[in-house]
Amino acid sequence: MKNLAVSILFLVFCIAFTQAQTTHGHSFGRKIEFPNVPGYQTLKCDFHIHTVFSDGAVWPTIRVEEALKDGLDAIAITDHLEYQPHQQDIPHPDRNRAYEIAKSFAENNDLLIIPGVEITRDMPPGHANAIFIQDANKILVDDARMAFEEANRQGAYVFWNHPNWISQRKDGIATLTDMHKQLIADSLLHGIEVVNELTFSDEAMRLALENNLGVIGTSDIHGLVDWQFDLAEGGHRPITLVFAKEKTEASIKEALFAGRTVAWYKDMLIGKEEHLVPLITSCLEIGKIKYVGDSNLAEVEIKNNSDADFIINSVSAYNFHGSSDVFTLEAHSTTKLEIKTMVRLKEFSMNFQVLNAVMNARIHPYIKIEMRQ
Amino acid sequence: MKNLAVSILFLVFCIAFTQAQTTHGHSFGRKIEFPNVPGYQTLKCDFHIHTVFSDGAVWPTIRVEEALKDGLDAIAITDHLEYQPHQQDIPHPDRNRAYEIAKSFAENNDLLIIPGVEITRDMPPGHANAIFIQDANKILVDDARMAFEEANRQGAYVFWNHPNWISQRKDGIATLTDMHKQLIADSLLHGIEVVNELTFSDEAMRLALENNLGVIGTSDIHGLVDWQFDLAEGGHRPITLVFAKEKTEASIKEALFAGRTVAWYKDMLIGKEEHLVPLITSCLEIGKIKYVGDSNLAEVEIKNNSDADFIINSVSAYNFHGSSDVFTLEAHSTTKLEIKTMVRLKEFSMNFQVLNAVMNARIHPYIKIEMRQ
Amino acid sequence: MKNLAVSILFLVFCIAFTQAQTTHGHSFGRKIEFPNVPGYQTLKCDFHIHTVFSDGAVWPTIRVEEALKDGLDAIAITDHLEYQPHQQDIPHPDRNRAYEIAKSFAENNDLLIIPGVEITRDMPPGHANAIFIQDANKILVDDARMAFEEANRQGAYVFWNHPNWISQRKDGIATLTDMHKQLIADSLLHGIEVVNELTFSDEAMRLALENNLGVIGTSDIHGLVDWQFDLAEGGHRPITLVFAKEKTEASIKEALFAGRTVAWYKDMLIGKEEHLVPLITSCLEIGKIKYVGDSNLAEVEIKNNSDADFIINSVSAYNFHGSSDVFTLEAHSTTKLEIKTMVRLKEFSMNFQVLNAVMNARIHPYIKIEMRQ
Amino acid sequence: MKNLAVSILFLVFCIAFTQAQTTHGHSFGRKIEFPNVPGYQTLKCDFHIHTVFSDGAVWPTIRVEEALKDGLDAIAITDHLEYQPHQQDIPHPDRNRAYEIAKSFAENNDLLIIPGVEITRDMPPGHANAIFIQDANKILVDDARMAFEEANRQGAYVFWNHPNWISQRKDGIATLTDMHKQLIADSLLHGIEVVNELTFSDEAMRLALENNLGVIGTSDIHGLVDWQFDLAEGGHRPITLVFAKEKTEASIKEALFAGRTVAWYKDMLIGKEEHLVPLITSCLEIGKIKYVGDSNLAEVEIKNNSDADFIINSVSAYNFHGSSDVFTLEAHSTTKLEIKTMVRLKEFSMNFQVLNAVMNARIHPYIKIEMRQ
Repeated sequence: MKNLAVSILFLVFCIAFTQAQTTHGHSFGRKIEFPNVPGYQTLKCDFHIHTVFSDGAVWPTIRVEEALKDGLDAIAITDHLEYQPHQQDIPHPDRNRAYEIAKSFAENNDLLIIPGVEITRDMPPGHANAIFIQDANKILVDDARMAFEEANRQGAYVFWNHPNWISQRKDGIATLTDMHKQLIADSLLHGIEVVNELTFSDEAMRLALENNLGVIGTSDIHGLVDWQFDLAEGGHRPITLVFAKEKTEASIKEALFAGRTVAWYKDMLIGKEEHLVPLITSCLEIGKIKYVGDSNLAEVEIKNNSDADFIINSVSAYNFHGSSDVFTLEAHSTTKLEIKTMVRLKEFSMNFQVLNAVMNARIHPYIKIEMRQ
Repeated sequence: MKNLAVSILFLVFCIAFTQAQTTHGHSFGRKIEFPNVPGYQTLKCDFHIHTVFSDGAVWPTIRVEEALKDGLDAIAITDHLEYQPHQQDIPHPDRNRAYEIAKSFAENNDLLIIPGVEITRDMPPGHANAIFIQDANKILVDDARMAFEEANRQGAYVFWNHPNWISQRKDGIATLTDMHKQLIADSLLHGIEVVNELTFSDEAMRLALENNLGVIGTSDIHGLVDWQFDLAEGGHRPITLVFAKEKTEASIKEALFAGRTVAWYKDMLIGKEEHLVPLITSCLEIGKIKYVGDSNLAEVEIKNNSDADFIINSVSAYNFHGSSDVFTLEAHSTTKLEIKTMVRLKEFSMNFQVLNAVMNARIHPYIKIEMRQ
Repeated sequence: MKNLAVSILFLVFCIAFTQAQTTHGHSFGRKIEFPNVPGYQTLKCDFHIHTVFSDGAVWPTIRVEEALKDGLDAIAITDHLEYQPHQQDIPHPDRNRAYEIAKSFAENNDLLIIPGVEITRDMPPGHANAIFIQDANKILVDDARMAFEEANRQGAYVFWNHPNWISQRKDGIATLTDMHKQLIADSLLHGIEVVNELTFSDEAMRLALENNLGVIGTSDIHGLVDWQFDLAEGGHRPITLVFAKEKTEASIKEALFAGRTVAWYKDMLIGKEEHLVPLITSCLEIGKIKYVGDSNLAEVEIKNNSDADFIINSVSAYNFHGSSDVFTLEAHSTTKLEIKTMVRLKEFSMNFQVLNAVMNARIHPYIKIEMRQ
Repeated sequence: MKNLAVSILFLVFCIAFTQAQTTHGHSFGRKIEFPNVPGYQTLKCDFHIHTVFSDGAVWPTIRVEEALKDGLDAIAITDHLEYQPHQQDIPHPDRNRAYEIAKSFAENNDLLIIPGVEITRDMPPGHANAIFIQDANKILVDDARMAFEEANRQGAYVFWNHPNWISQRKDGIATLTDMHKQLIADSLLHGIEVVNELTFSDEAMRLALENNLGVIGTSDIHGLVDWQFDLAEGGHRPITLVFAKEKTEASIKEALFAGRTVAWYKDMLIGKEEHLVPLITSCLEIGKIKYVGDSNLAEVEIKNNSDADFIINSVSAYNFHGSSDVFTLEAHSTTKLEIKTMVRLKEFSMNFQVLNAVMNARIHPYIKIEMRQ
């Protein structure tokens, strides 16, 4: 019975000192936070934004203030070239005007303002954003293809907007038309929105992979970011995470043409495996293995330094003492994993599928976590 | 260009009137809520609870108050028969005493108090709870097997506690010993804790299925429920959902022997497929199909009337306009699914794997959702 | 000792069944809520608002959406007549334009849009709003006094804006100039902002009383209401509560000229005693007197149906069992008062000074609460 | 008009850069926090606590854990000597037992456990706590006065419990009986609870002052602190703040006999002026005077480093630009005062009455705040 007493005492101590497994980090604010990845800064960018200079509802200065509050590194104001519903009141012929106002307002801040426009056409080709342009006015030409050509002549990065838009595709299924194929073939179209505003398109992601287009996510904000993306409830605007060598316009442009992006939308990260995996592993700080008492139960703390709640599907050899194979690594929180390693190990690795990360339609990446004493 | 104007106007309207996809229900209190299932009431039960009458830290009345606050239907106070660390101060020889105090305190409430004890032995057989007993004192006998026999003689439902307990199994892996096999073969052991306090055991679930043992989840509370399960952060105590014909002791006992249970632990529901699937589908209220404008995009609202955040992996033919195949149906919230059905359908069904439900080690059930206009 | 046992039992029961004294109502949303008063509807109005049509940062439609979210009954868009910093981009000569856009956008809603302008002059007379005007353009004249005359000719209600503005009064002290005195004497100026944006002026309130000017509180919003008034932290925009016979423009105008207003700013209500007292008493629902057990302790529940946390200084004959003479009746909450009436009373009254209500500089109104069994 | 443009630009900048006046500190936890005062540590103490060893509902260890969670420095377990409703189950004759269990459980913590008992009698003298005793058993004598004498012989600090208790005073009005007067005259009674559990007594405070009794506030907890004081809603247990030379039992005892205490209850601080004023001023950190632009408006930030929301009634010469004379300095927050000093001052002082502090029935102390550039 002495054994029993001891083991029960142990139980009592366990109970007395057990901590809740997850240390919550609820009170993080609206600033979007993702860590840098090896070799690159992770820049938070929104490349699709409207103002009163087309069909948006705010002066460009509000866009700068929203971006600062959201902790963004760069935005592009991309008013419609061809669609000017406020023309009666704002007859200004210069399509660079919104950019200039925003640029001037932001000048003492750390926020990059990238010149851009939305080329706004019937399908095909639908809508496309050209960013890093020289002069918006010159892109306002009759022929749609010529607009793409002019944007490219100016060195622009051009991406297809909301290819899943049900106003232009009744079924919401992104598909390339011949015109799109030609634009891609001629290197006039470089990216595609897999995320636009409140939508995500599996098919657009497939097109991105098949055609080597950049993966873009944008807010396409017309009204207020606070309202549209329900910030009071913890929402955020969709953005593109750009892995750039430094925080400059040139560096962002280089990264876009090199395709180094991940879209951040609701709880999802969408991108190519080669960008998703380093991003996710950079978000996670792995503690040291500690064995509990004289047991073979390994405890490892994982700190998630990002805004994303990672939904994990563990496909490792070992089971957990505190959860099934599916669990969540909450944003800005530390989760203690209790791993049944059967024997005491100096080191081991676990393979986690990250279900809220998407590398192709319905395909989720795997990360390998190395654990050490 | 008129087409363009119209379609852009449509975009503007979409933006103006789009609602956030999920209506959050954050402010639900600590009362645990799950709906009834066809043919049965879903009773919320905790069958493993300690008081000062063994090694717990509270008077039995607090256990009643906790249970009322948690919205439970039934509890069993199950103090250790053989382990009495407070004996110096509480020398009472009657092992039914804690039950009597709780029973008397609860008498004007709707809470059922089920008589129980914890048979507390070295491994094998380790610890086991006997509930629905007649007289605790008679179960306090030297021989462990005789204790099981006496409990069964009294008509008790007996389940194996924390078979994964690292004080009795260094590796935390639940395995049957010969003694357990014999107890099961002799119908003296009827259930197994797949969940105890802060732990879940994949292996215990496998044992439950292989040996037709009842699936049990308990708090094993010694201190305070509020602290141990972090209620201030939205936590809850682990319980067993019992599908009973009515809310009576007899009916709960019948349900337990018939194996109609699901354990509710953290964000997980654990049980046999035949119980999980009706429970989950009873939690979900499916709205009618509505097609958006003249598009082929179907909108269906799903209201989750339970405390569980369901993590869904959709394995259906159709993709979503708002998310990937993995998404969450938040507790006590309504989620609007936007489904790309390609053509307009009067009715269709979707298959959802529910990742936070567990029907065997690493196996998650599928539910079929029928949608109609 | 039997007595002792009984009285201690009583204590134990008290402890078991005592409820927290205040039932909190934390989760009320951003809609501003105050009840109607006898004979009048309590209309929530903001009469000082800017858009891109002067120096504001949003299109008029955003102002309508903000007002709907805030639960307002009426707004006036009051862009500066003489100050047009966006003129380069918005050269529109028609000063009624912002009103027209807002009016048209709001037409299917219940929100009243009142035509208005801000007459924007050096001191004296400083800035003034004219609302219920016929044609803004005609008020844009060189001579300041003639602007007031034209507004009055159109039947406008005219109030002095931010008389405490430190850009026009370095000390922030509102004082009448000769010109103001003349405008008042000639009935050309009818109200005064005692609250503007983030400021309150004791001196303006004194001027309102001495000169029989209407008491006005406004947001003077240029940017976003959400940000400027910190809605995420529970803030609200300053407004004027207008006690009107019905919810029509005519009725609001009648009420303004009759001086039936109270300003709502942060936690403060500012107005004349004759309006404050009925408003506050309408906010409070008084329960029946219940005596506790066989004691002489009277319990009375007071439900506060408004957004205001009332800070009470009780100046009654009786003391409280649960608090000192100063306590708070929280917004949208029920507070149970325990009153030591010494003997059992069928009815009695209490006098409460309401410290967060202001009827003159540093003077706070008293309300009398009648309590009955 | 240039002047106008400049002053309006100034307005625009003000709007753009104005911060909300109060920086909220909502997320502070349950640990009670008050700063030290000049010459003394501010120790947080609860001297009235029950366990299962009289009519409480928890084992003494829970009391230690609660106190640690609440950030207390010292507690006394004060079970009823004469009232033992659990005697059937806990027949232990040693009245020091609860203390011993708590003391032993707390031994590796920083929490002081002070030996105590509750002398539990009919009125007079009603109930009284004796703390810093040597042996509880010896105080259990038939004659009430002899119990006080024995406690004093042991060197105890003795205070009258809930003199306003409606079970012993139907009207809830604390009054001295002849027996109390004699106990005070004989120096056998040293303190009085002005706060007990959920009650405050103006009359008890008056008695404390008139008879030079120590001011005591206690939880008198029988059930769970979390529930009784509604911690989930931000409540806290009532305690006594003791101003001690160091954190030792001896030092607390010295401070009690010297009368250096303040009671902390709901939002109220109750004590003698000489203790309240240093405490409140120690809670407040006064920033430097900054004048806004070229105006005569002084800005001063006040940081409140305590758990108390101070309700201020300013009785100073100057008015505020942002509020009336009554405003709140929120707990753990910084409030920016904007003071209309008329001319620019290098230094000035303001007098604030602190309405949620009580120094006698309905009397609130004044503090003087010195402000400097």
